[in-house]
Amino acid sequence: MDAIVAVCKRRGFIFQSSEIYGGYNGFFDFGPLGVELKKNIKDAWWKDMVHRREDIEGLDSSIIMSPKIWVASGHVGGFSDPMVDCKVSKMRYRADQLFFAPVLVDGEKIGYVSILEDGNMQADAQAAAEKMKRKGGHQGELAPVELKEYTEADESEYELIPSPATGEPGSLTAPREFNLMFETKVGALSDSSATAYLRPETAQGIFANYKNVVDTGRVKIPFGIAQIGKAFRNEITPKNFIFRSREFEQMEIEYFVSPDADWSEIHQEWIKYCHDWLLSIGLPEEMLGRDVHEKLAHYAKACTDITFEFPFGEQELWGIAARGDFDLSQHAEHSGKPMEIFDETAKKKYIPHVIEPSLGVDRLLLALLTAAYTEDEVGGEKRTVMKFHPRIAPYKVAVLPLLKNKPELVGRAREIFDKLSKRYNVFWDVAGAIGKRYRRQDEAGTPWCVTIDFDTIEKDGTVTLRDRDTTEQKRVSEEELYKFLDESLF
Amino acid sequence: MDAIVAVCKRRGFIFQSSEIYGGYNGFFDFGPLGVELKKNIKDAWWKDMVHRREDIEGLDSSIIMSPKIWVASGHVGGFSDPMVDCKVSKMRYRADQLFFAPVLVDGEKIGYVSILEDGNMQADAQAAAEKMKRKGGHQGELAPVELKEYTEADESEYELIPSPATGEPGSLTAPREFNLMFETKVGALSDSSATAYLRPETAQGIFANYKNVVDTGRVKIPFGIAQIGKAFRNEITPKNFIFRSREFEQMEIEYFVSPDADWSEIHQEWIKYCHDWLLSIGLPEEMLGRDVHEKLAHYAKACTDITFEFPFGEQELWGIAARGDFDLSQHAEHSGKPMEIFDETAKKKYIPHVIEPSLGVDRLLLALLTAAYTEDEVGGEKRTVMKFHPRIAPYKVAVLPLLKNKPELVGRAREIFDKLSKRYNVFWDVAGAIGKRYRRQDEAGTPWCVTIDFDTIEKDGTVTLRDRDTTEQKRVSEEELYKFLDESLF
Repeated sequence: MDAIVAVCKRRGFIFQSSEIYGGYNGFFDFGPLGVELKKNIKDAWWKDMVHRREDIEGLDSSIIMSPKIWVASGHVGGFSDPMVDCKVSKMRYRADQLFFAPVLVDGEKIGYVSILEDGNMQADAQAAAEKMKRKGGHQGELAPVELKEYTEADESEYELIPSPATGEPGSLTAPREFNLMFETKVGALSDSSATAYLRPETAQGIFANYKNVVDTGRVKIPFGIAQIGKAFRNEITPKNFIFRSREFEQMEIEYFVSPDADWSEIHQEWIKYCHDWLLSIGLPEEMLGRDVHEKLAHYAKACTDITFEFPFGEQELWGIAARGDFDLSQHAEHSGKPMEIFDETAKKKYIPHVIEPSLGVDRLLLALLTAAYTEDEVGGEKRTVMKFHPRIAPYKVAVLPLLKNKPELVGRAREIFDKLSKRYNVFWDVAGAIGKRYRRQDEAGTPWCVTIDFDTIEKDGTVTLRDRDTTEQKRVSEEELYKFLDESLF
Repeated sequence: MDAIVAVCKRRGFIFQSSEIYGGYNGFFDFGPLGVELKKNIKDAWWKDMVHRREDIEGLDSSIIMSPKIWVASGHVGGFSDPMVDCKVSKMRYRADQLFFAPVLVDGEKIGYVSILEDGNMQADAQAAAEKMKRKGGHQGELAPVELKEYTEADESEYELIPSPATGEPGSLTAPREFNLMFETKVGALSDSSATAYLRPETAQGIFANYKNVVDTGRVKIPFGIAQIGKAFRNEITPKNFIFRSREFEQMEIEYFVSPDADWSEIHQEWIKYCHDWLLSIGLPEEMLGRDVHEKLAHYAKACTDITFEFPFGEQELWGIAARGDFDLSQHAEHSGKPMEIFDETAKKKYIPHVIEPSLGVDRLLLALLTAAYTEDEVGGEKRTVMKFHPRIAPYKVAVLPLLKNKPELVGRAREIFDKLSKRYNVFWDVAGAIGKRYRRQDEAGTPWCVTIDFDTIEKDGTVTLRDRDTTEQKRVSEEELYKFLDESLF
């Protein structure tokens, strides 16, 4: 993981947000290589999900929508984490990440020692433990217990748990629900009627526009609506680089089907389709897994995550949920608008059920970085190479005139660059030894380098085409070059 | 304008946000056609500004950044509009849009009559005027006076102006500055240390990452950093459809030059470059104008807007400002980080100066819709046609099998569709009479239709290629079709 973060910073894939001001926790910026990688991921998804499928329409709804949408969806009421406050330090902690251990004296519980899951506050917890030991206690079993299981317990229970901030017990409140939506005020008034939210998911923008799409398009069931866009969650402990951040981007589809359809089969088809798509952009099969949820929300019929072996463990990458007609029915009820569609084939009207494949752009980007990152040896020297699939590589090809100070070489290379850059993102590099330039492209993940040398301008017009992964080089004509790239990239 | 709004809604270009909940003022959603149009605009800009120019790097910074950035940039202190509150109704008005007229009795001012610029409250103002007339006054000259010119005046001045909400004088406060940035709270704490802002422009994300790009890339002065992304402003009176909304998207470049360079010349070059780019994506020259700002911010050296003839008048489309070293110097001072770059040619270190071309995606989209919207007659029938440049048209081509119930026609059409959709966004339409299908594509702005008929499968394999603007049809071979599109679209 450290190697990936390092290459991301060194080569300009990903920076911490607001770095010159000491950073801003939970936010990230994408540098010149990162923005291309991200764009290619989104473009590939959009092409395959929207352009190449007739049954899916695209949408781009606003980030700030009417707060009524979030009341209807249940987010205002229920999109929250249990939090405890420390009354002394004014710090707030996610109760389900605040692990603690009972401290026993002669088998009798005399208090608790707290440690945060990620170990941030361990020093304080250790000090608290030391102190309790001095008092004659001994530390209990340290297997973490989730504080939220005690939600129903007596409030005094929590007063015994030392605050991670102070190391002293007595200052923590009982867990309270803390809404993860970012709040703001819209318009001239500043009272509660102006309260609005940054969307915590793109999905509700789709449900809110379902009627518009049905009314203006000529959709026939089953059909889907796809959207790519930013979403925001005020995560209390953002972590694992861009895996869990406060501002992130989602690629979501709501796929509407008849209530009479075999939803389980369609759900399975989507899981397979998503899995295959991940393979098609370069994730290796052996790094993917499945997590079939056993605990489900009351309205959900099934949810399966496609997981990925991140450096910090196997984690959710793509959630594919069968949500029934819950969301549309909620919006029908709250808005008073009918959400039925007329099924031309079955000759009847109904509120469709929905399958929701929901994928995070940033998580997928991190998975692709993880899978691509390779260290190997070339000619006895170590190299770092990002083995991105050509479809998502930031640059498709680099054009390198062998020598910088030979105008004939540079001129010919420039012609090739201009031709290629009409179609692809091409890197131009004239500086330094050719081997060093190849290494630079390897680290950026550029699949191919084209070198223009004296044979090109004096002999047969061929150029050297060098492969990133094998480092093999072969001479090809310009025509062959264009044909090769055209076939490889479309 | 009404015709454009109507076609946008009817064909699924643009919807009002949260329509099923009665709408949400200042926010818009882009439907299936709108999202493609918007994507094509952004892709064309990115390709021409970032991919095809070696001197410009791309970036994608977060929407929520450290609040310190907005202190340094001056937005926390000064990004505001003058507002007046009505103490009775609790309504708030933009003072510079609250026009009013003095009411004179025998040449003596006895009060004011207020009318809002957009006429929303005119009924109330009229009633107030009537009342004053009954009292023996008569209405003064109605030429609008900007209330903000009275900012320095006695507060009692405002108490004479009737509130647009009540029609009664005495309840308006003196103007106060109202910050246009949307505020939120980030993290677990809810005190003022948690206050953060949604960015009101993408530019500061560029300045904040300038050092990262300089350190990781191999940029040489002059160079630029480009970014596309959402920005948010709590406009008190959003108006003119998507022209002035609260959530919008920007395409901005900061172009860094030596302080010794002739900035005025570079500024002029950028104006011309931007102007030419607008022509290249289909805006007609005669709809473009220039607005050279005479009033400038204290740090600005020059600012020229490229304007466009919108249906509601000539308005700013693309602002190109010469901002000196103001922003980088501010960030150097506030962050304590050096912002100098070493100029390899001049062999010296300096903080570069900047030229900033700043373009709104939504405004450009509205300009393109305005320019494209055409009503003409074909075969004696009226048609609506959106004459988008092929580069930005939502669909590049539609594939139409002549008859729906002939499997040979549909099968052959499907083959062509599959081949084309690997490269372009292609529409598939089998339903209805062919003339009706052509009209549907005209309204969506699809430049070409390809019809597969019996000649295609029984005779020479040619298809009909139909041009949107001329409605001319010609028969071409499949090979000719692919070549034509390839040449037209790259």
